[in-house]
Amino acid sequence: MATKRPDTRAPVTPGDLDPVIHERVRLSIVSTLAARRQVDYLELRTLLGLTDGNLAGHLRVLERARYVEFEKSFVERKPRTTYRLTAAGRRAFQKHVEALAALLPPRGGR
Amino acid sequence: MATKRPDTRAPVTPGDLDPVIHERVRLSIVSTLAARRQVDYLELRTLLGLTDGNLAGHLRVLERARYVEFEKSFVERKPRTTYRLTAAGRRAFQKHVEALAALLPPRGGR
Repeated sequence: MATKRPDTRAPVTPGDLDPVIHERVRLSIVSTLAARRQVDYLELRTLLGLTDGNLAGHLRVLERARYVEFEKSFVERKPRTTYRLTAAGRRAFQKHVEALAALLPPRGGR
Repeated sequence: MATKRPDTRAPVTPGDLDPVIHERVRLSIVSTLAARRQVDYLELRTLLGLTDGNLAGHLRVLERARYVEFEKSFVERKPRTTYRLTAAGRRAFQKHVEALAALLPPRGGR
């Protein structure tokens, strides 16, 4: 590790934060998937309190970045779409979490 | 405290995140101000690696929300503008930090 250089850099610069993950709805989606491994579409919509259009649009952005993948199946003859993070999505979230952790004030240091 | 209800809510929902603070550049500005009490404009621009237009625009959004205030002074006959968080800005950042902390995976639980 290099020596500490306090006050020569901001705790976090905008470039440290991945815009694909940082957007509020997508950050909520990704953190939910990170905590629960896989979640089906309807459950995700309910958990996050989103409209179909809003959720679908943000999922598409995450799929295009290859952070999220889905699987379609049938459960009792009803179609179900299950989402999960890809390995790349998990790494990107981990990196994002580290950047966010860097901007949190030290615990107990209010 | 109510009993724990795991898995009935997402760790963080989009509504838990203040859009004024969450935006990447503004989050960087606010976390810098939270860590350093007050910062002058040129230093902030350098620390965050921003253009004038970008920094000024985001500072205006923060001022309008009354999260940030500034003071103009002269140092060796040169004008200097110093920014700091207001009490409301500090509270809003603290609340945001708590929402972000809720989405971080448990330490050591990678």
